[in-house]
Amino acid sequence: MTDQAYMQLALSLAEATRGQTSPNPSVAAIVVKNGSILGTGVHVKAGGPHAEVHALRQAGEEARGATIYVTLEPCAHTGKTPPCVEAIINAGIQEVVVATTDPNPLVAGKGIAYLERHGISVTVGVEEERAKQLNASFFYSIQNQLPFVTLKAGMTLDGKIATSTGESKWITSQAAREDAHTLRHQNDAILVGKHTILHDNPSLTTRRPRGGHNPIRIVLDSELTIPITSKIVQDKEAPTWIYTTRRAPKERQAKLQEAGIEVIMCDDDTISVSAVLQDLAERQIQSVLVEGGAEVLASFLQAEAFQQLVLYIAPTIFGGSAKPIFGSANIASILDAYALTFDQIEQLGPDIKITATPRRKESVTCSQESLKNLEPSPVSVVLENQ
Amino acid sequence: MTDQAYMQLALSLAEATRGQTSPNPSVAAIVVKNGSILGTGVHVKAGGPHAEVHALRQAGEEARGATIYVTLEPCAHTGKTPPCVEAIINAGIQEVVVATTDPNPLVAGKGIAYLERHGISVTVGVEEERAKQLNASFFYSIQNQLPFVTLKAGMTLDGKIATSTGESKWITSQAAREDAHTLRHQNDAILVGKHTILHDNPSLTTRRPRGGHNPIRIVLDSELTIPITSKIVQDKEAPTWIYTTRRAPKERQAKLQEAGIEVIMCDDDTISVSAVLQDLAERQIQSVLVEGGAEVLASFLQAEAFQQLVLYIAPTIFGGSAKPIFGSANIASILDAYALTFDQIEQLGPDIKITATPRRKESVTCSQESLKNLEPSPVSVVLENQ
Repeated sequence: MTDQAYMQLALSLAEATRGQTSPNPSVAAIVVKNGSILGTGVHVKAGGPHAEVHALRQAGEEARGATIYVTLEPCAHTGKTPPCVEAIINAGIQEVVVATTDPNPLVAGKGIAYLERHGISVTVGVEEERAKQLNASFFYSIQNQLPFVTLKAGMTLDGKIATSTGESKWITSQAAREDAHTLRHQNDAILVGKHTILHDNPSLTTRRPRGGHNPIRIVLDSELTIPITSKIVQDKEAPTWIYTTRRAPKERQAKLQEAGIEVIMCDDDTISVSAVLQDLAERQIQSVLVEGGAEVLASFLQAEAFQQLVLYIAPTIFGGSAKPIFGSANIASILDAYALTFDQIEQLGPDIKITATPRRKESVTCSQESLKNLEPSPVSVVLENQ
Repeated sequence: MTDQAYMQLALSLAEATRGQTSPNPSVAAIVVKNGSILGTGVHVKAGGPHAEVHALRQAGEEARGATIYVTLEPCAHTGKTPPCVEAIINAGIQEVVVATTDPNPLVAGKGIAYLERHGISVTVGVEEERAKQLNASFFYSIQNQLPFVTLKAGMTLDGKIATSTGESKWITSQAAREDAHTLRHQNDAILVGKHTILHDNPSLTTRRPRGGHNPIRIVLDSELTIPITSKIVQDKEAPTWIYTTRRAPKERQAKLQEAGIEVIMCDDDTISVSAVLQDLAERQIQSVLVEGGAEVLASFLQAEAFQQLVLYIAPTIFGGSAKPIFGSANIASILDAYALTFDQIEQLGPDIKITATPRRKESVTCSQESLKNLEPSPVSVVLENQ
């Protein structure tokens, strides 16, 4: 097996833990000597041992002279657990292969430098893109001090999320809806508008065949009009936070707080997307899944406040009079259209899932990341096993 | 090489001739003996020799004892050319491999039976699905006495074909627009509404790097409001037919006819999709590409008068206030939504092309074709060479 093959295996392990390690990243490690795997490990949850420690423990004395493959640069600082670089050196590891450096500019490279100073050979950048993708929200939130926002919707081929009479159950298939629950599992928080609560009374929990992590439920409700009897107020399945304004009646606020709901008052008379995201960042939320409705999606679109768009598209048409996915959002000219890049197309039962990322126009703050997106890149396609 | 491999090669040849043989189907033939190809042929244009004749001529005396692969059942009747079964027998062919039988119920199987009566071994059904797909419009029009209708549009990811101010140039990329010209090349006729002429003044011709066949241009214009100065009236690049009603001013009609335009009067006060399609069938039109605008697409959608939907989707968003692809089409309930099946997803530069077919609801006239569509089938995906 090549370095790439071992790293791909480690990445597959780490990818399977997405959603369970926040606020930490998903990481896996594999110890190899003479072409044999001696130990594997994943970081299971924040506060627990890092992936390297599990893998080295399993390898035991055999780790001496071995190579360790790690999907993220080993840490050089003491956090809730001792630094991994020490564990690697103490185990007698000869070579470390790292997929990507730590995104935090203050610590990036320190782990690698420490290992090299101790005579260990370090290779960096094997399967780097996939490793960055794996922890995209962790990387983004550290670098931008804002949560990574995913806009998500299930819609028809002609871009509709409900009929003209408001029917929307169900547009997409069971397969697509199950995949959407995995998105919930992988996000710290899920965000909807008050209309979604009033119209659907959803629980906004993660329902997958083998369970999952419930995101914190966030509702934008400038006048606190959602009923106290709403599932998200009553069911205690996950924390619920409601952003509102001073226009909301005080007694309403008190009742919600009595029911255990966190009511967050915005400074303004309206709820601004950027204020909500800044507040969420301060509350250590790294990732937010915005599930609608159409006006909330339109607000995030118009604020260009999203890093990913995930659309489940059903092979069906509702016609021009039905409800469009992006509410009343409007652009003045075709030049102002919201430009994206298609990243992945996946078949889910009869439906398809399209993942796209915004193509930023501002050239002033043009990071390497956005430059990369401007180059035409092939769309990755995942087909079901036939 | 296997029978499948030879037939795939023949199908690739025949597919490359799509658009040049109407009203005849696209057909190719390959003569093989002892694992060597001795002759290949395609049907080049209606009135010319059939594919089998070209392939047998090239093989010459060597055809004796050989196998011929043909993408469509050889004809047993004398049309503009002598029957191919005679040519096959006279050449001394030992075995015939056919992808699919002739779709015309009156002649289907006659060619095969004739060959077998003359001691030739015949295999039918190798790569049958692909062979039927290749000549889908020929098969459909013979079996239904109606043209095969393809609805086509270039749109944003949120289902918009123009901004709220009417801007639409260009939503999709050069790569997508070139592909759309190949669709024109492959259709007998192209159909638009009067608004498309009034708004864009298009030529509706086929513009590809290596040329192409111009479809007959059809406009639905119930009051003959398009200008005499329109490109499609003046440029003589292809025939132009205009469907209208008695509401249209007589002098307008006369002027268009003077300019060489075929003006077709509908019996009704409005132009009905089904009346137009029946008239087109009588005029030997096998395939129609409906290019819009939004109200014309909505009419065909609501009449469920289409066999294929081709959407070029650009990675861009216009928002809910922009112009939807299916005009004012509306459905009463989600149960009445227009159900489709995704057939193929293809990457074209930054865009994707989705091909879908309608999933018919009427169970009474449920043909084998529509039954097949009810089964979940994997979406075929074509990626660009990276």
